[in-house]
Amino acid sequence: MNHFQPVALEHASRLVNHGPTVLVTSADGARRNVMAAAWSMPVEFTPPRIAVVIDKRTYTCELVAASGAFGVCLPGTALADLTYALGSTSGRTLDKFERYGIGASRGPVLGMPLLEAGCAAWLECRLIREPHAEDAYDTCFAEVVAAAADARIFAGGHWSFREDNADLQTIHHLGGGNFVRAGGTLRARQL
Amino acid sequence: MNHFQPVALEHASRLVNHGPTVLVTSADGARRNVMAAAWSMPVEFTPPRIAVVIDKRTYTCELVAASGAFGVCLPGTALADLTYALGSTSGRTLDKFERYGIGASRGPVLGMPLLEAGCAAWLECRLIREPHAEDAYDTCFAEVVAAAADARIFAGGHWSFREDNADLQTIHHLGGGNFVRAGGTLRARQL
Repeated sequence: MNHFQPVALEHASRLVNHGPTVLVTSADGARRNVMAAAWSMPVEFTPPRIAVVIDKRTYTCELVAASGAFGVCLPGTALADLTYALGSTSGRTLDKFERYGIGASRGPVLGMPLLEAGCAAWLECRLIREPHAEDAYDTCFAEVVAAAADARIFAGGHWSFREDNADLQTIHHLGGGNFVRAGGTLRARQL
Repeated sequence: MNHFQPVALEHASRLVNHGPTVLVTSADGARRNVMAAAWSMPVEFTPPRIAVVIDKRTYTCELVAASGAFGVCLPGTALADLTYALGSTSGRTLDKFERYGIGASRGPVLGMPLLEAGCAAWLECRLIREPHAEDAYDTCFAEVVAAAADARIFAGGHWSFREDNADLQTIHHLGGGNFVRAGGTLRARQL
């Protein structure tokens, strides 16, 4: 059963307020990709805007530049291994969705691929072109145009981290595959 | 006993890689301030650079613009209440260091006030002037010029979250005074 429910746009920035490591999804025509990103933050609540660092050498950067859009998905603890894997491989030479058996839905506004199984939430984002910030700092600013969350951990505009939703709790990358979460430290295994 | 040790600059971005809520310190002449900021991220490892959202209406923004520098301190769980308080009051009308009995040392390069007691780490930062990003997104880019961490939780370039250093573990603001940390959810009390 899928527990995802829409999140009001005025609450969207709260989804990344606490600094989770995220998965950045992208697509341009038939090309698509998903990568891990530890570096993101909100920059505004209303309208909801975020900043994400996307290395300009990545396939993701190429697709985002082409489509002007990307998705941000928040993996839960159960996806720590997958997250590390998605941050350690390039989508130029393989379709990571197929390689890792990742199912994706289509974003309601921009058609970005979005992960729900094992994730706590997602945000669909429209790139705000800022050539200097992109060039100098690999920093992409974007406006959130749609968001949703698993109602078992985020509902009514608020997070609720509890013992019974530990698998959905967000993960925060320390480096080298080591994550912290509410509840302890996870060590990612190689997939 | 103070356990702070210098952190090599090539490891400085790791201090904020996992999205902790931070305290931004500032000073210009005799004026000084400290505020909480949930929105920050690294943007580069070498040279170590970060981005922090500082609302342009704040006293901190005024001091940072004047001095071209700021500090970033990582409060541990024991400082959750203080962190929430520092994010809910303005330094224009009171000296928050005095009001809350906060001791501060002087940064080695830029002389910024830096908190160590109860904190896991600090970074001393030189503002990189980016008028457009500051104006449009309240986003301040900066280069880290010095960093240090409590060796009980960060040493040799790596974090180590353990049961015996729970008080130093970083906190991550969900909103409204609710934080998550490795180990559970903290609810800040009003000071």
